[in-house]
Amino acid sequence: MADQYAQTREDNRPAGTPAIRWEEPPEGPVVVLLDQTRLPAEEVELVCTDAPALVEAIRSLAVRGAPLLGIAGAYGVALAAARGFDVDDAATALAGARPTAVNLSVGVRRAQSAYQSALAKTGDARLAASAALAAARQLHQEDARASARMAEHGLALLDELLPGGGHRILTHCNTGSLVSGGEGTAFAVALAAHRAGRLRRLWVDETRPLLQGARLTAYEAARNDLAYTLLTDNAAGSLFAAGEVDAVLVGADRIAADGSVANKVGSYPLAVLARYHHVPFIVVAPVTTLDPATPDGAAIEVEQRPGYEVTEFISPQAPLTGAGGGLPIAPLGTQAYNPAFDVTPPELVTAIVTEEGAVSPVTAEGLAELCGRSRPATSG
Amino acid sequence: MADQYAQTREDNRPAGTPAIRWEEPPEGPVVVLLDQTRLPAEEVELVCTDAPALVEAIRSLAVRGAPLLGIAGAYGVALAAARGFDVDDAATALAGARPTAVNLSVGVRRAQSAYQSALAKTGDARLAASAALAAARQLHQEDARASARMAEHGLALLDELLPGGGHRILTHCNTGSLVSGGEGTAFAVALAAHRAGRLRRLWVDETRPLLQGARLTAYEAARNDLAYTLLTDNAAGSLFAAGEVDAVLVGADRIAADGSVANKVGSYPLAVLARYHHVPFIVVAPVTTLDPATPDGAAIEVEQRPGYEVTEFISPQAPLTGAGGGLPIAPLGTQAYNPAFDVTPPELVTAIVTEEGAVSPVTAEGLAELCGRSRPATSG
Repeated sequence: MADQYAQTREDNRPAGTPAIRWEEPPEGPVVVLLDQTRLPAEEVELVCTDAPALVEAIRSLAVRGAPLLGIAGAYGVALAAARGFDVDDAATALAGARPTAVNLSVGVRRAQSAYQSALAKTGDARLAASAALAAARQLHQEDARASARMAEHGLALLDELLPGGGHRILTHCNTGSLVSGGEGTAFAVALAAHRAGRLRRLWVDETRPLLQGARLTAYEAARNDLAYTLLTDNAAGSLFAAGEVDAVLVGADRIAADGSVANKVGSYPLAVLARYHHVPFIVVAPVTTLDPATPDGAAIEVEQRPGYEVTEFISPQAPLTGAGGGLPIAPLGTQAYNPAFDVTPPELVTAIVTEEGAVSPVTAEGLAELCGRSRPATSG
Repeated sequence: MADQYAQTREDNRPAGTPAIRWEEPPEGPVVVLLDQTRLPAEEVELVCTDAPALVEAIRSLAVRGAPLLGIAGAYGVALAAARGFDVDDAATALAGARPTAVNLSVGVRRAQSAYQSALAKTGDARLAASAALAAARQLHQEDARASARMAEHGLALLDELLPGGGHRILTHCNTGSLVSGGEGTAFAVALAAHRAGRLRRLWVDETRPLLQGARLTAYEAARNDLAYTLLTDNAAGSLFAAGEVDAVLVGADRIAADGSVANKVGSYPLAVLARYHHVPFIVVAPVTTLDPATPDGAAIEVEQRPGYEVTEFISPQAPLTGAGGGLPIAPLGTQAYNPAFDVTPPELVTAIVTEEGAVSPVTAEGLAELCGRSRPATSG
């Protein structure tokens, strides 16, 4: 487990820096991650030489975002195979690193299946490792293409729901190129609207406790020259009340068969506000996020994260004095409730946009039909 | 303007430490504040020797909370008078230090009127200064008594709305003894429920961006041995969805004649969530918060605070590297929307509880009747 920090990249990266890449230096293959916990203050790459390092990077949110977790999981299996570790052990550890995002286990399974099939067929572990890597790379490329298609479908839907353009879009958490092989999910739709000259304002929820909105979405918005404004999560209500929000766009970590959407905590209150103010609440996610094996919202396991993420301010720049390695902001001994996700029921979701098209209204039948439309390769 | 920090009090203060006090050392009268920006890490007192120092303390939120701002404003006028400064100038500066809390200008006016009446009657500035101080002290005592009565009325209302006890109460911002001459407003009701053995859990919203919930309400809850749990503001939705909230209790900074309630930003989304989940949303505030001169919510001026409170993490313990004196958490140049308050329309408020009783449903007539019930001395 020899992950190490590469030196900070001082050069001006182009917008859309890959959040993950596979490299094969002479010392052996590695998975290189842009460490998202250090953004936006510094761009540091984290080099993972084995699956446990990648599991730790997933748990610590150095790599995060539903689609990217799938890609990371697949590369992790390929890494274990290429380095000669037990592939099934690695797959189990990777798939269990975070429980809510279904894409993670889907990505892991896909590389694992490719490995097992090739091994059964050829008996050659090296060929099987190549097959796992090929599967990971294919998933990575498919995800990039899916981003582009989600952006198209999403923009078409926005234009249909909000004729006249000049969209003022509220988004929560981070759903851009940092979570994807391409330009992301919800953020990719906002970006498409911006490029089409139809984005008036992107309202960026800061997304407590880990501030993915302030740190990551603002970073991606700035890099892409979007007109954006940051706000605390609880200030969104004032924007709705003032009629300043035309649509809410968010991603998803798991969508149950009935259309219940697990996404970053704070999405559900936005859905309730959107309903109260007759504003569309739109979920953008690849079809791999649809999980037919989870019947409804109640069946979604919601990850509970450590309380210190709430009771301490966590930042690489903050003095490390608290038990969680952060700066205490609440009295010592304060207990915190810290679910990573919440679940929005289908009746509050105006539409689910995937690379295969949009479902609106959101029904089990509509989602099942969409799953059927997607190629078998992306649903396994 | 020689405000200075007294040394940190290391002794164990009793619960209910006065947030403000008037002292008369040999060097001349001073207003001593518990600096709320330093809590909970350290208890530091801020000594104000003139009104400008107090204005700065109000702006920087060293002293805050609607009822306490009224008391601070009145003492500020008394301080200017006692020190021989121009009382009207001081009153204007104090009343304008923060625009939304009506109690501030009410408190200022009350001490100013007392000063002016005494001066007109006696022609003696020293006697007039004594009258201003007596008015401030009376307001301070009345507020303490009002707290106790709000707690009684509030608990009676809770017991009526939620028979069976075991209340799980969600609160936002800080409304305890730090904002009051007594035990506060909404927090005083939770405290009364706790003392009566009927508080099962106090859910404490952290209250971004300045974290009054995490820093101050958690501090007061811990000191009073309440069963409390801290959460990010956006996690409240999950609690409602799980049926874990029996009532929401908040304070108010200004209540318009129609019953619209201006309170800390994030209150309105809670009111919408409460309505969606059929949970009572209860506002607790002294009658001085009712402002017959403001006809409705649209007429309430909402203070917009600097963006750096959102783009930087502000803490006395954080390294001071950003433009606002905090730790940057968003990319340089990020614009932020930072209203200090939001406005909840009367149709979302289940009840307004004052020291004179509760109004439910919230109507202009009910509030006017309540104002009439309050003694003239507290309405001027």
